[in-house]
Amino acid sequence: MRWARYDDAGTPAYAVVEGDDLIPVRGSPFATWERTASKLPLAQIKLLPPVIPPTFYACGMNYAGHVREVAAKIGQAPNLPTQPDIGYRANNALIGHGEPIVIPADATDKVQYEGELVVVIGRKCKHLTRHDALSAVLGYTIGNDVSERTWQRSDRTLWRAKNTDTFKPMGPWIETDVRLDDLVTKVRLNGKQLIEFRTNDMVFGVVDFLVAMTKYLTLHPGDMVWMGTEGATADMKHGDTCEIEITGIGTLRNPVVREAK
Amino acid sequence: MRWARYDDAGTPAYAVVEGDDLIPVRGSPFATWERTASKLPLAQIKLLPPVIPPTFYACGMNYAGHVREVAAKIGQAPNLPTQPDIGYRANNALIGHGEPIVIPADATDKVQYEGELVVVIGRKCKHLTRHDALSAVLGYTIGNDVSERTWQRSDRTLWRAKNTDTFKPMGPWIETDVRLDDLVTKVRLNGKQLIEFRTNDMVFGVVDFLVAMTKYLTLHPGDMVWMGTEGATADMKHGDTCEIEITGIGTLRNPVVREAK
Repeated sequence: MRWARYDDAGTPAYAVVEGDDLIPVRGSPFATWERTASKLPLAQIKLLPPVIPPTFYACGMNYAGHVREVAAKIGQAPNLPTQPDIGYRANNALIGHGEPIVIPADATDKVQYEGELVVVIGRKCKHLTRHDALSAVLGYTIGNDVSERTWQRSDRTLWRAKNTDTFKPMGPWIETDVRLDDLVTKVRLNGKQLIEFRTNDMVFGVVDFLVAMTKYLTLHPGDMVWMGTEGATADMKHGDTCEIEITGIGTLRNPVVREAK
Repeated sequence: MRWARYDDAGTPAYAVVEGDDLIPVRGSPFATWERTASKLPLAQIKLLPPVIPPTFYACGMNYAGHVREVAAKIGQAPNLPTQPDIGYRANNALIGHGEPIVIPADATDKVQYEGELVVVIGRKCKHLTRHDALSAVLGYTIGNDVSERTWQRSDRTLWRAKNTDTFKPMGPWIETDVRLDDLVTKVRLNGKQLIEFRTNDMVFGVVDFLVAMTKYLTLHPGDMVWMGTEGATADMKHGDTCEIEITGIGTLRNPVVREAK
């Protein structure tokens, strides 16, 4: 089942995706809901980020190849995580499928994509076990953890390197029927595939993180966890289109523009 | 004017604080509102965190004495910030005035308070200037940035050191009429004052942060910025009561309990 969030004449609303159509619902997947009798053509609808989370979690370094790659880029020694220490991103940066990634005029050319699996929490939970952790997951979507590498190196936090407005594209929708081991992530820039990896080849997996996090943290419906990315990443420039496909979920596509100076 | 958020038979609601009473309103300070004819005795009402922000910002190291103090505690060289790089905290950890700070059973004894001024944003804004930055502020409240120092040293992020459930007491209310230069922060543990500092003696002030942040980030109504703390901090143990007073705003008081093993 696929849950989309869309712009219903200025008000965010949820709908079920069926083929090329959206079936609007009353309510939301995080509470109670019922289908309406409406049907909207997906192609004509503006999709929104499929959820605005109470807390926006992100794993950061969670694939071995990417840890080595980023370490080289920011001039530090690679440092593979030894425990699942979760990090954070910020809601101001979220945009939906199709919306432009806007590179600020004073950013360098080192603005790069990172294709990530996004775990969306469906219910309030704490003290999850390895046995029941996945039962707290509503479904999965796709995130692009856009990163300005010079700010990532120079600043004390990731505030503008990763949380500049529009730097967190997410979507197109939440897929509830997913087998993690089947997923493959592919990143394409202007149609050319630049990277492909088994989505579930993480240093710490979804269950590892959910169990560790909920030892101390209550998760709430709509909270989400971005699971990190693998491999090398490349610069995106004005006029580019970045696509992140995760097989079985969908494709998140965003154009790139650079602000005029 | 003072804005409180309280538990109205299970539903969060806003009220104006007048003396020892709450005057409930319809609406909220972040949109339109009007007073009701009701009046509730403040002493009998459960106060909630005065806002649950879309994004929870925190300055971290922002007072010279505290930078030196924490560096010594976590075994690193003091590193005074050279630019206002904002960080993040998490909503799961928020509790209101009067609610208990719960120390997890496996935490060490190094669980410490940090008394902080909290800036609450009143309107959507970007590209604030030094001239208009404070016009985006609805008001100010008080935060206790509770920190487990061994986790702060051992973990790659601050997830459990600072964002364990109940580690972010905030309140009691939002005061809209504040002159920043007049404020004094005082921290008392079991009635004994342990620290006192001029609240506005920050490395980077409220205007500095709002101008820097909104160069890249859109702030939204209800977003908040915790401004950091000064000086040494002390351990809190089961049975303690921690009070943070900021003159002209109020006093945030929370008991401390430790989970049984």
